[in-house]
Amino acid sequence: MTRYDAATTPKESVMGEQDREREEFLRVAERARRAAADLAPLPRAVKDAALHAIADALVRSAPEIVKANEADVARARESGTSEYMIDRLSLTEPRIAAIAEAVRKVAALPDPVGETVRGNVLPNGLDLRQIRVPLGVVGIIYEGRPNVTVDAAALCLKSGNVAMLRGSSSAYESNTVLVNVMQGALEGTGVPSDAVQLVPGTSRASVKHLMRARGLVDVLIPRGGASLINSVVEESTVPVIETGVGNCAVYVDAAADVDQALEILLNAKTQRPSVCNAAETVLVHAGVAEVFLPRALEALREAGVTVHGDERVRAHDTAGTVVAATEDDYRAEYLSLDIAARVVDSLDEAVAHIRTYGSGHTEAIVTTSQPAAKRFVALVDSAAVMVNASTRFTDGEEFGYGAEIGISTQKLHARGPMGLPELTSTKYVVTGEGHIRT
Amino acid sequence: MTRYDAATTPKESVMGEQDREREEFLRVAERARRAAADLAPLPRAVKDAALHAIADALVRSAPEIVKANEADVARARESGTSEYMIDRLSLTEPRIAAIAEAVRKVAALPDPVGETVRGNVLPNGLDLRQIRVPLGVVGIIYEGRPNVTVDAAALCLKSGNVAMLRGSSSAYESNTVLVNVMQGALEGTGVPSDAVQLVPGTSRASVKHLMRARGLVDVLIPRGGASLINSVVEESTVPVIETGVGNCAVYVDAAADVDQALEILLNAKTQRPSVCNAAETVLVHAGVAEVFLPRALEALREAGVTVHGDERVRAHDTAGTVVAATEDDYRAEYLSLDIAARVVDSLDEAVAHIRTYGSGHTEAIVTTSQPAAKRFVALVDSAAVMVNASTRFTDGEEFGYGAEIGISTQKLHARGPMGLPELTSTKYVVTGEGHIRT
Repeated sequence: MTRYDAATTPKESVMGEQDREREEFLRVAERARRAAADLAPLPRAVKDAALHAIADALVRSAPEIVKANEADVARARESGTSEYMIDRLSLTEPRIAAIAEAVRKVAALPDPVGETVRGNVLPNGLDLRQIRVPLGVVGIIYEGRPNVTVDAAALCLKSGNVAMLRGSSSAYESNTVLVNVMQGALEGTGVPSDAVQLVPGTSRASVKHLMRARGLVDVLIPRGGASLINSVVEESTVPVIETGVGNCAVYVDAAADVDQALEILLNAKTQRPSVCNAAETVLVHAGVAEVFLPRALEALREAGVTVHGDERVRAHDTAGTVVAATEDDYRAEYLSLDIAARVVDSLDEAVAHIRTYGSGHTEAIVTTSQPAAKRFVALVDSAAVMVNASTRFTDGEEFGYGAEIGISTQKLHARGPMGLPELTSTKYVVTGEGHIRT
Repeated sequence: MTRYDAATTPKESVMGEQDREREEFLRVAERARRAAADLAPLPRAVKDAALHAIADALVRSAPEIVKANEADVARARESGTSEYMIDRLSLTEPRIAAIAEAVRKVAALPDPVGETVRGNVLPNGLDLRQIRVPLGVVGIIYEGRPNVTVDAAALCLKSGNVAMLRGSSSAYESNTVLVNVMQGALEGTGVPSDAVQLVPGTSRASVKHLMRARGLVDVLIPRGGASLINSVVEESTVPVIETGVGNCAVYVDAAADVDQALEILLNAKTQRPSVCNAAETVLVHAGVAEVFLPRALEALREAGVTVHGDERVRAHDTAGTVVAATEDDYRAEYLSLDIAARVVDSLDEAVAHIRTYGSGHTEAIVTTSQPAAKRFVALVDSAAVMVNASTRFTDGEEFGYGAEIGISTQKLHARGPMGLPELTSTKYVVTGEGHIRT
């Protein structure tokens, strides 16, 4: 490492800092790489015991974790962070107990590693098996909530992967203690302590090191808003799995059961507006608008939802509370009690709207028409398509996967809720008796 | 489009050319995007009939294709291209007939689209199905051989994907005619003619447009040498599937059947040295070196193979033909009658060598020891691991997949030979009766 004397100019001094950070990152990444090789072949029992050791240590170290978290929270308060964000950042002893409980739940899930995905004997007698193996080192870039630090580490460990965690700088002290506690818990379990790693530093450059660590990091999973994900996609040479941006639409078909449509729309919009599978747009077929819209606008208003409607929606706005929709509204992932609304003349027009403005997460159709449902399912190119069900069901727990590392909105590798199998790759094992090709 | 008058400076003129090329690329990509939406829901029968129409048209247009190819070949000869490369570039009527036959074979393969990957009824009564859907627009960047133009287009079409083809500029006239013939054949079949597209232009910028076409192109598959693949990985914002670089090793264990090891090594090295699953390295356990190496060196010499050996290999070189190995030899994908050779003291040392120098394609162990085989399989992190079989078996046809678009050496999405299912993504279809989340 380069050392600088008192004569160093400020610019050189910054370079020195960056070089040091990069070298420190590379040291951590190399340790992660070596740990990945040791972790990959470990049997389930060793990994599960390690997860329980982590859960125990988290509960035991709760006071220490809370103390570090209080420092983060105080810093966030000073810098004027909203109470909503403060709440996401805060760790209390009951919250830590819940995080530990989630780790035990991950331990109870089946181990995806070693599962035979395909297998048969070839005509020449070669035994061909495709089996699940860990990805290796998984980099996770996330915002705010420090519980992700533990959730992600646990899911990675269970699937035989090393986690390289890069949380929000606002939670750096919390994350540092959480990772220290987890690393300490791993000692003596057979799982290398290096299987859980925090990317050192809080600068933007430290994210960059992770994004350029091709060959050291096998995959990057950014979890957060569209701008975070776009910047990772743009800059990363490590393969990326995009997660979490959800501009979800509910389409109320001409043949909809109107009561059902109302219930689904309200649930999709209001049950938990801040999550990616909440509805952000409602598209109403002209044939049902007269019956549906007056009731829907009233119900949304009563639920505190601001509707951003096109002209044809506003024609039904007797209360005068609907705001005029812009193109930006059609594209918006509000994550709040807002919704864009539009009347369409056909199912295909609804599909075209979704193709233009959607984020490929989840779209729902409400209809009693089987052909309409079939056509919507065939034409909508999203990770999940709901027929007569709320968009809120796109979720790893709801799908029965036990836990999820995120919801992929890309088409490669994994699409939709990502459980443990989505954190694996595969390997072909071909066994012969001296087979050669002729 | 901007127009330039006679006063345009040379630099502006270049900019104008680049802008035009980019606009032309975007027009083609937009057409591809629209075609992808129309192609995705088409049933198998329509796609198969279209493939047969393509095969018929190729045979019918063989003289025209050969003529265009002759122009490419003449240009290649003028620029001093090797006869080996000329052979790869050349199309004759029999070769075109073989290409058409391969298209018919693709038509006969099962359609992956619509296959249910997972499906069950959730405790709340929701019907959950994960089904295969096309990726969308698949960009393929390849070198030399114009038969890839047709192979890749056929595999993409069968799996419901639009192919955006970017072949070698040396084959541009051949590829232009091949794509024209295919597009013409699609007319009236129900498959949009735009389902097969050639990236316009032969400049390096035209490759760049493809690599930056995020949102228009869903995945890029570079097929070619390491430098092509690295540059695509480095510059692309479109997700990439790396294929084809193979620095494959054969490890001869202490417990190897020496006759079997000899046969496998010779087959892996010499049966077709120019392909990615040919062996480039042999690692010999010290315990068997004395018995194995003298015979192996002699057999390799007789087969015309140059051995690049470490000191312990050269100790057995009675003929004095072994060249001293360097680090570069351990890393080399020779694709020729050369092989790196090294004596190791243990299976783990062989694994360490592979981890350091291998490309993650295929490694083989020759051993009669079950524990040794198990350990090698567990520790080697490659797309395929062979036990007592030649590395040459890593191949879509050999694995029974009928055809392959390439052999993935990355861990995301697909690993190993990529058949039709690897050219798909999935979509969740969730059907309820007014289900909402509580």
